[in-house]
Amino acid sequence: MRLWGTPEGSALDPAFERLNASLPFDRRLYPHDIRGSIAWARALARAGLLTPEERDAIIAGLEAVKAELDAGAFVFQPTDEDIHTAIERRLTERIGPVAGKLHTGRSRNDQVATDLRLFLMEAWPRLDQGLRGLEEALAAQAEAHLDLIMPGYTHLQRAQPIRYAHWCLAHAWAFERDRARLRDAYPRLATLPLGSGALSGTPFPIDREALARELGFRSLSPNSLDAVSDRDFVAEFLFIAAMIGIHLSRLAEDLILFASAEFGFIALDPAYTTGSSLMPQKRNPDALELARARAGRLVGHLTGFLTVLKGLPSGYNKDLQEDKEPVFDTVDTLEILLTVLSGLVRTMRPRPERMRQALEEAMLATELADYLVRKGVPFREAHRVISELVRESLRQAKPLSALPLELMRRHHPAFDAEVYTILDPEAAVERRSIPGGTARAAVEAQIQALRACLDRSFQESLSGARPDP
Amino acid sequence: MRLWGTPEGSALDPAFERLNASLPFDRRLYPHDIRGSIAWARALARAGLLTPEERDAIIAGLEAVKAELDAGAFVFQPTDEDIHTAIERRLTERIGPVAGKLHTGRSRNDQVATDLRLFLMEAWPRLDQGLRGLEEALAAQAEAHLDLIMPGYTHLQRAQPIRYAHWCLAHAWAFERDRARLRDAYPRLATLPLGSGALSGTPFPIDREALARELGFRSLSPNSLDAVSDRDFVAEFLFIAAMIGIHLSRLAEDLILFASAEFGFIALDPAYTTGSSLMPQKRNPDALELARARAGRLVGHLTGFLTVLKGLPSGYNKDLQEDKEPVFDTVDTLEILLTVLSGLVRTMRPRPERMRQALEEAMLATELADYLVRKGVPFREAHRVISELVRESLRQAKPLSALPLELMRRHHPAFDAEVYTILDPEAAVERRSIPGGTARAAVEAQIQALRACLDRSFQESLSGARPDP
Amino acid sequence: MRLWGTPEGSALDPAFERLNASLPFDRRLYPHDIRGSIAWARALARAGLLTPEERDAIIAGLEAVKAELDAGAFVFQPTDEDIHTAIERRLTERIGPVAGKLHTGRSRNDQVATDLRLFLMEAWPRLDQGLRGLEEALAAQAEAHLDLIMPGYTHLQRAQPIRYAHWCLAHAWAFERDRARLRDAYPRLATLPLGSGALSGTPFPIDREALARELGFRSLSPNSLDAVSDRDFVAEFLFIAAMIGIHLSRLAEDLILFASAEFGFIALDPAYTTGSSLMPQKRNPDALELARARAGRLVGHLTGFLTVLKGLPSGYNKDLQEDKEPVFDTVDTLEILLTVLSGLVRTMRPRPERMRQALEEAMLATELADYLVRKGVPFREAHRVISELVRESLRQAKPLSALPLELMRRHHPAFDAEVYTILDPEAAVERRSIPGGTARAAVEAQIQALRACLDRSFQESLSGARPDP
Amino acid sequence: MRLWGTPEGSALDPAFERLNASLPFDRRLYPHDIRGSIAWARALARAGLLTPEERDAIIAGLEAVKAELDAGAFVFQPTDEDIHTAIERRLTERIGPVAGKLHTGRSRNDQVATDLRLFLMEAWPRLDQGLRGLEEALAAQAEAHLDLIMPGYTHLQRAQPIRYAHWCLAHAWAFERDRARLRDAYPRLATLPLGSGALSGTPFPIDREALARELGFRSLSPNSLDAVSDRDFVAEFLFIAAMIGIHLSRLAEDLILFASAEFGFIALDPAYTTGSSLMPQKRNPDALELARARAGRLVGHLTGFLTVLKGLPSGYNKDLQEDKEPVFDTVDTLEILLTVLSGLVRTMRPRPERMRQALEEAMLATELADYLVRKGVPFREAHRVISELVRESLRQAKPLSALPLELMRRHHPAFDAEVYTILDPEAAVERRSIPGGTARAAVEAQIQALRACLDRSFQESLSGARPDP
Repeated sequence: MRLWGTPEGSALDPAFERLNASLPFDRRLYPHDIRGSIAWARALARAGLLTPEERDAIIAGLEAVKAELDAGAFVFQPTDEDIHTAIERRLTERIGPVAGKLHTGRSRNDQVATDLRLFLMEAWPRLDQGLRGLEEALAAQAEAHLDLIMPGYTHLQRAQPIRYAHWCLAHAWAFERDRARLRDAYPRLATLPLGSGALSGTPFPIDREALARELGFRSLSPNSLDAVSDRDFVAEFLFIAAMIGIHLSRLAEDLILFASAEFGFIALDPAYTTGSSLMPQKRNPDALELARARAGRLVGHLTGFLTVLKGLPSGYNKDLQEDKEPVFDTVDTLEILLTVLSGLVRTMRPRPERMRQALEEAMLATELADYLVRKGVPFREAHRVISELVRESLRQAKPLSALPLELMRRHHPAFDAEVYTILDPEAAVERRSIPGGTARAAVEAQIQALRACLDRSFQESLSGARPDP
Repeated sequence: MRLWGTPEGSALDPAFERLNASLPFDRRLYPHDIRGSIAWARALARAGLLTPEERDAIIAGLEAVKAELDAGAFVFQPTDEDIHTAIERRLTERIGPVAGKLHTGRSRNDQVATDLRLFLMEAWPRLDQGLRGLEEALAAQAEAHLDLIMPGYTHLQRAQPIRYAHWCLAHAWAFERDRARLRDAYPRLATLPLGSGALSGTPFPIDREALARELGFRSLSPNSLDAVSDRDFVAEFLFIAAMIGIHLSRLAEDLILFASAEFGFIALDPAYTTGSSLMPQKRNPDALELARARAGRLVGHLTGFLTVLKGLPSGYNKDLQEDKEPVFDTVDTLEILLTVLSGLVRTMRPRPERMRQALEEAMLATELADYLVRKGVPFREAHRVISELVRESLRQAKPLSALPLELMRRHHPAFDAEVYTILDPEAAVERRSIPGGTARAAVEAQIQALRACLDRSFQESLSGARPDP
Repeated sequence: MRLWGTPEGSALDPAFERLNASLPFDRRLYPHDIRGSIAWARALARAGLLTPEERDAIIAGLEAVKAELDAGAFVFQPTDEDIHTAIERRLTERIGPVAGKLHTGRSRNDQVATDLRLFLMEAWPRLDQGLRGLEEALAAQAEAHLDLIMPGYTHLQRAQPIRYAHWCLAHAWAFERDRARLRDAYPRLATLPLGSGALSGTPFPIDREALARELGFRSLSPNSLDAVSDRDFVAEFLFIAAMIGIHLSRLAEDLILFASAEFGFIALDPAYTTGSSLMPQKRNPDALELARARAGRLVGHLTGFLTVLKGLPSGYNKDLQEDKEPVFDTVDTLEILLTVLSGLVRTMRPRPERMRQALEEAMLATELADYLVRKGVPFREAHRVISELVRESLRQAKPLSALPLELMRRHHPAFDAEVYTILDPEAAVERRSIPGGTARAAVEAQIQALRACLDRSFQESLSGARPDP
Repeated sequence: MRLWGTPEGSALDPAFERLNASLPFDRRLYPHDIRGSIAWARALARAGLLTPEERDAIIAGLEAVKAELDAGAFVFQPTDEDIHTAIERRLTERIGPVAGKLHTGRSRNDQVATDLRLFLMEAWPRLDQGLRGLEEALAAQAEAHLDLIMPGYTHLQRAQPIRYAHWCLAHAWAFERDRARLRDAYPRLATLPLGSGALSGTPFPIDREALARELGFRSLSPNSLDAVSDRDFVAEFLFIAAMIGIHLSRLAEDLILFASAEFGFIALDPAYTTGSSLMPQKRNPDALELARARAGRLVGHLTGFLTVLKGLPSGYNKDLQEDKEPVFDTVDTLEILLTVLSGLVRTMRPRPERMRQALEEAMLATELADYLVRKGVPFREAHRVISELVRESLRQAKPLSALPLELMRRHHPAFDAEVYTILDPEAAVERRSIPGGTARAAVEAQIQALRACLDRSFQESLSGARPDP
């Protein structure tokens, strides 16, 4: 059913018809469209525009159409331009002319904006749950290997020893920020456009507050012209998703490195790698590579959609139809990536011996400088002294810990025997006991704080006081 | 002063030195760097790592260096690699070796992250103020021309009459969402990384809570490894800015159209246009064109920075140095655009006669359908009836309002004399009295609601209960 | 058929399996995969690795598999990971173990790169043809309305009169540049990677030159490691496509404006618009809006894929699998847009009366200045003189052409009666007779030059001397 | 000197004036602007619009202004809106009213397009030279270490042995494609817009061919409306640059990995790294990290500019002013990156012992399969046999080469004593002797082919027959 006509005697160009058709992708919105229409029928009845009987007939008809769609029994017609017209066409077939009252006071402009918001409002807690799943997997790794020490890197150079748990949690906190972004964006998403008509507002006395309550929206769009063309919620979602993608790409990059023969810090579970029967020792980290790559796709969706929006005049423009495909693909991409990465992280095994081998004593030179600082030597001077000692040790081809105390004292009188206790990775780690540090107690406190965040469901986080992650 | 050395006898390649130098752009961070260093000196003193005298000497020295920089009297040296080393070098020149104690327990990694956050924490309320200024200009236009009616557009086709004030407010609400995004992102921005050291946390007993309080941060970074490489706050800022850019491009596009000879709805003040002495009637809307174009630049900064982040391993990587230039340029771009657009909107004058001419009766056909609906005719049937009438009026080359009642009644018995009151733009507008509609009362309520938002300063919005715009 | 195994007793995680599967999209490569495999079988036979009988059995089998796929009769198995393994699995079912010889000396890495190149090599002339179709439609408009004059715009302000044909051709030349880019990129696309193995080259004496000839490639990849990871041809294609998208968005923007009630320069054929039975005068330019919007999508694909590539190490990485979906969607998007826009342009009708009305005399003020220049007055002085005259005419509320000659001469003695012939749009247009100008003869020469380009097929343009457009 | 006026009594808003001013960045175009103006003066003289004396006065004046600018002695005025008006203002000061004849028949629209093209036409050979320098450094590494064997990677897993020279050349060929893109884009860049006036063509009989010859352009823009708004050459340049950036990011990523403690394949020269006096063994690869990151910046410039262009109507729009900053920054970025990376590559030293250690025998399992294939065993069967042998060797915890022949023959009768010669990396490499393979002779042929490309200067490559790289 096409809701508009071509002049008599003329037909649409078939290629244009194909270009224009959104049914191939927007059919996915059918549950949201029907849910919205049911609420609209109730609103029309409350406004006296439908009798109770008409309302009930329409609602029953819509539920029957939904059942057909759920069952895959719905037969689309070539003239079904989009999911909205397909559903109304079928409703008319089932319940007759009274179906023609449903579109009273509504326009496809406010209808489609409502549908897409409902779609995302449903996706939101699932994505939140996906993030929590991955954070929980990281937290579980942290808890299971609390005393495992590995090199921390800067510039991909071994820099200082840290707990493996600390590394796990570093990634978890990034995803926790993503959860906070989802939570903060939700009120802007859950704003009801319905009642805005084509652009100027419906001329009928619809109770928009009641509509919003019934559909789970948290507020009303304040301006009908804005409401039909506002796609901020799409762009904001695509950004949050791109950010999640970036975080996944960082986790993936770390793990691809750690799973290489050269690093060897992590053994990935075969369930998450592909391999070669010829080279069984070789496990290709495909899941991680795909996760890394999908960040590009997500950035592409964000950029592409912002480019669509740029320079559009206000009011509804057909350009906005480009919102759905990136939204659907982004939701799907995030759901599968979060599921797969959660499983991969949950099942991966750290390889303590390789981590231990990688802890060179040279990583502890700053410890020596800090030791002198604690004895009152200005940091820059301490730095210079240790720098000389390091050169000395290189000249002698001995580790620092093998240099005799008297030699050290010749470089600075503040050295004493305690110095030999300094050059221990475990001790170095334990000195980082401030909040956020890598000492055992600080890491345990981190886990506790993260667990507190993870205990809060999406609904709770929306309503409760919001902590600052 | 370079804080690291090349092996003896070797020198840096000069081109690399130029590539590596961040001083040309990061010098802008000096007030933030010095503010952070003063707080750090106090923290070191509290931790017993500086005596009160040392602390005071360092603070006085830093303030003197700041005074030099404020006055433009600071002389940079070729060896000053970045602003942090330049300041410490100068501090050493002024107060001697005690300056060497300042960097105790700190790393450039946590220092620079702190500086950039401080820079943005200061910019935030200015940007909020810039947005408010533009919204106020739009609100003032709305208030000054509450009864002006113009065509509302869909697909750039005249669709339905709306109030000019409604159009103004549609844009204002978009910027109000931008304000909400700034507000929501602030807690993630105002998270203190200082105390994270190079990556694993400082080994000294620094009171991070006190540091945060002194510097105006609202929380502590929970994980030192995350803290030194977290640039979410940059990406989130660049996204919010791109969104503002998109909104500005939409406002600009509308106004470029409205200021054209063809639309003629708006006269721009000469203070905001360029012209030609040969064609004085021609005023080029350069300000608007630049605003529209800068959306592209802002999208570019966002995309570029997300691409920088993609696939980086965790820990500090030099790649992150690419954060500053887009941040600085984005802040500058937004500030000037918001200032200019506020002025332009404040001074522009609507042209009521051109708007009135553009209100064709044909825009009111849906009014007739709704009129029948109110008389109990199902919407789709009403739609069909009016469609026939429209064709009739085209055949007779008469406006709808010139068709005799009996002819109308032949198409549907529900027509009565009231029909002739329907085809009035003002009446059509007044029927849209639901919340968000374009009727006078609804628009007045909108203005009131917007004013309530605008009355809340950025600081108030942070602390108070947060309404959902 | 999976070509690698999991360790005994283990299975792949189902979500990972779904993430990893490329069959849902890469099945589209089957004709190219089979074509490549047939050529490979011949190459193996030439190298003595297949007997003629084995070769013929494999080729016949591949052709039979292709027939199944062409007919939609091919039954995919859940274990078919991608189109390559699906085809080899089916080949084995049909011809038995000899199928196991086909993959000799080949790897999926060089195979999939070859397939995607073949896909694009086939798409290239179709896209070239699509561009030509649109250019021809523009050229036909130009030819059909050679004497129609309209306002030319700068800053969306009426600036100078131009021929409508000149406007048509301005767009055509942009698409001609796109054709040149396709042509120039072709040699880089048509470079054969087959024979590169997994990364280091096949160890068998394959005649790569013969392979290239058979498959229509123009050169051999010079380095096997580069060959398996080179996706420049994808990025370059996505860029060319984005550029085409930008050009389409400009054409669409012009036409959306020109088709508005306010401009009214163009009537779009109803076959390319959607409408409302209530407002038959309103034709929504959906095709143009979608064309404008798809530029965003195309920019998104380009950006997304560049982001995928950024920072990847050399050699094949699974990330590269992200190449196919943007390529397929981009080809489809361009093909439908070029088809629809060609039809829309071919059928649109300019509205001469509206164009004429829009030609204000004020647009000719520069003509007067140039007239004085021709009489020897320095340009800046002439500019000042005319500027005064324009102000005079505004004061007197008369057009310039109504000012008496003596008044003009009071402003400058160089004026004579000829001045009144200057203020004619047609004459102004005809003065622009230099190459590229808007005079009739110059436009005719343009059309001829464009026709010469359009007469050259893609194949001819590849081989022939290349003109510089 | 502002070339247009505000209505009497009014002034520009100062913030708008700042927004509008392009002088802060376009002053860089002064040599190109002056070169263009000198050619324009000659063209005007040839057209009889200047006397020889006037022409000579103008040219001498322009040369004097240029000398001031070269010497840094030029004093900009607050009213200098852009570089074009600044130069004309100064010219007038120097030579008087005759300067007012220079702008005859020209517009800032065609002038600025010409200037920016000239800027890039000059940058082009420098960028080509930069690419050649880097390729030569890679070629020199290849030649100096022709017999060095290292692991080749797929999925960052050791896959097959390759020559280090092969790895070097893989990168070089990518940059050679970038050179080809520069070359192919040049004719589109070197198209002269001058003579197009504001949009419709100059009304004076200018000899555009002569202008083009004098300025080094290769063709004339065919349509004046297109000419003033065509920025394809900017977008195409930004794309080519982004592609170079992607290639640099890949080289950088490889080298960052290879320079890590874990890989250890490469020692970077201290002149290209930063370090820590405390950890002298740690050399931070800042140059490489910055190169990797700048790919993001370049992608951002491309995306941002495409977004600027999207949806613009035809004709000159001020939005186009956003072309210059990304062009300048991109040229600067490429020049410094190519210089630094050339130096870094030239001076880096491979570490043969670390490469050798990384060549595990397991990487040669496919060699065994190919060995059986050569003995007539179908590839898939050979694959299965070797796969069993590999599992056997794992069970016995012995390398493949330590398995006795009789055991092998139990798995397949085709094994003979030759098998023990197969498991040698050097032999494996030498079997890849096809074109593009990693065998010594094939690599030598590659070097020769690359050298032939490098021997061709940019000018030669433009004029000569173009090979397909």
